[in-house]
Amino acid sequence: MTIKDIAGRCGVSVSTVSRVLNNHPDVSEAVRERVLQVVKELHYVPNNSARDLVKSQADDIGLVVRGVGNPFFTELIRPIERTIVQAGYTLTFHQINTEDDELLAGAGLVRSKKLRGLIFLGGCFDYAPERAALLDVPFVCCSYTNSFGMLRKENYSSVTIDDRQEARRAVEELLRQGHKKIAILLDSVCDRSISQLRYMGYCGALSDAGLALDAGLVEETQTFDMAAAYAGMERLIKRRSDFTAVFAIADAMAVAAMKALHDNGRCVPQDCSVIGIDGIAMSAYSIPTLTTLIQPAEEMGETSVQLLLDMIEGRAQNRHILLPTVLRRGGSVCTLRQEDNR
Amino acid sequence: MTIKDIAGRCGVSVSTVSRVLNNHPDVSEAVRERVLQVVKELHYVPNNSARDLVKSQADDIGLVVRGVGNPFFTELIRPIERTIVQAGYTLTFHQINTEDDELLAGAGLVRSKKLRGLIFLGGCFDYAPERAALLDVPFVCCSYTNSFGMLRKENYSSVTIDDRQEARRAVEELLRQGHKKIAILLDSVCDRSISQLRYMGYCGALSDAGLALDAGLVEETQTFDMAAAYAGMERLIKRRSDFTAVFAIADAMAVAAMKALHDNGRCVPQDCSVIGIDGIAMSAYSIPTLTTLIQPAEEMGETSVQLLLDMIEGRAQNRHILLPTVLRRGGSVCTLRQEDNR
Repeated sequence: MTIKDIAGRCGVSVSTVSRVLNNHPDVSEAVRERVLQVVKELHYVPNNSARDLVKSQADDIGLVVRGVGNPFFTELIRPIERTIVQAGYTLTFHQINTEDDELLAGAGLVRSKKLRGLIFLGGCFDYAPERAALLDVPFVCCSYTNSFGMLRKENYSSVTIDDRQEARRAVEELLRQGHKKIAILLDSVCDRSISQLRYMGYCGALSDAGLALDAGLVEETQTFDMAAAYAGMERLIKRRSDFTAVFAIADAMAVAAMKALHDNGRCVPQDCSVIGIDGIAMSAYSIPTLTTLIQPAEEMGETSVQLLLDMIEGRAQNRHILLPTVLRRGGSVCTLRQEDNR
Repeated sequence: MTIKDIAGRCGVSVSTVSRVLNNHPDVSEAVRERVLQVVKELHYVPNNSARDLVKSQADDIGLVVRGVGNPFFTELIRPIERTIVQAGYTLTFHQINTEDDELLAGAGLVRSKKLRGLIFLGGCFDYAPERAALLDVPFVCCSYTNSFGMLRKENYSSVTIDDRQEARRAVEELLRQGHKKIAILLDSVCDRSISQLRYMGYCGALSDAGLALDAGLVEETQTFDMAAAYAGMERLIKRRSDFTAVFAIADAMAVAAMKALHDNGRCVPQDCSVIGIDGIAMSAYSIPTLTTLIQPAEEMGETSVQLLLDMIEGRAQNRHILLPTVLRRGGSVCTLRQEDNR
């Protein structure tokens, strides 16, 4: 029983059967149903069909996810895996903790699984060239780039938003609504990573608006998890009563911050506005709906895979793609009344 | 450069180095740091070290996730992957859509990747024996079992909560608070899967309480996603004004239901109580905090891997584990005033 038998039985081409078996969208519903019906009747087990047709080499791509539990990453893993499978490859999946070294983890996987390439999700922003040289396959940094490292641009690929610029936009949205006492909830001001870049955007927006940086409004949580964000927001509330808005550098942290404000008797947005960055599914169902900059998760995941495949299959060299976010105005930011700006 | 060189240089055993490289928790911080320091100095790239020591066979385990986007699954994938890696195996990861056939997908992966075993997450509850026979490796159904199928218990393994019984408990919690007009928000009453089992629990609890089933309070959403749950809740609100509580069969659906109630001018819990099942991280940060039955996600993931490894490594046959949930009383359920029971 081969894929050709299925194709003959269905009266379609072998590549159509392959597309159906790989869940490729470009097949009519009627054809898909007919093919699957025959597959079921004949008890056909596909032998990784797309590969049967076009490849004889190893076809594994590794995905190393650093910082488990980030709900935004979940929304990236989905399109990454789907795009890899549609191209006839399979995905070896590995999660590491924030303190672990993803280059070491990736290099180990490449060697033991003979991977063709790697995608890193949530990695460090400061790879040293000699460390990155551990990898002898192409790799793509998804959702970040080497902002704090010395890696040459032609030696790696990346697909990300412009963290610094987008953070600046988030704070500018608060400034436009009249806020001047704007707090920031972040992992760390000097993590040489996403948190530091977004902090730089926050500082830049304040500076452009002629506002001095107020260190007492900067709350570091040391991690990105919701419990830490909730605790950080409570510390801020206990310490200061004069801020009218909070920029949380990730949606999950923003949702936890809204909860902490609520539990401490402050209404969002009347008593305090909250803005995030990410656009995770859950943020559309918070009460109020979170105002946030939505990252194009589907496009970011798909593009990361496309860049990697272009290199694996010899069509292109390393590239760097910056994607824009889209501001969604929810109900968590309101215009400040003049008398609140003390 | 081998793992023995690292061990010699650090003055520890080879298995200690292996544990460090595989992120095994059972190593002191001091030893971990020393080993990683030497690994860095020597630019050592582990060749999947645990495997070097104990295995020469393929060491891949497949995880097939059906129904992408379920946030509860994210909390299961984490311990599954971690436990697999700690045991010296690697994870091949594949997601499929709700309408796809996970047995076919799993059988294809087993053949092409020479997998040692499979874990299915979110699969169907009604495998036919001849379909399951497509798999010639051990497999574990994680978070479900073969309630509606004819599969013999000795031919597969499962780790799950008792969906029917736990749904009954959720409804009983509402009954205890005086509610009698209790709606249910679910995928489908006859999906031969998780939704149908939890519906049976709902019906059983009502029946035991001497309450007739009111078909107008049963709202089917056809999918588990939050947008569908929100829309379903809105239909229910438009159709009926007399229910005082809702049992949503999953936390993500419950959070969306709370949002729909809020957007339609009904306060939770004063105007309508809401209870879920799952205990996803986000449900602790909804406003109000969701009352829910918390599934032991970590234990469920770890146990699934343990059962599979016991079979792969010849220590045990197929087994079935039922795990209990824990009721977390949030703020989304309140005691009904007598006059509200019309």
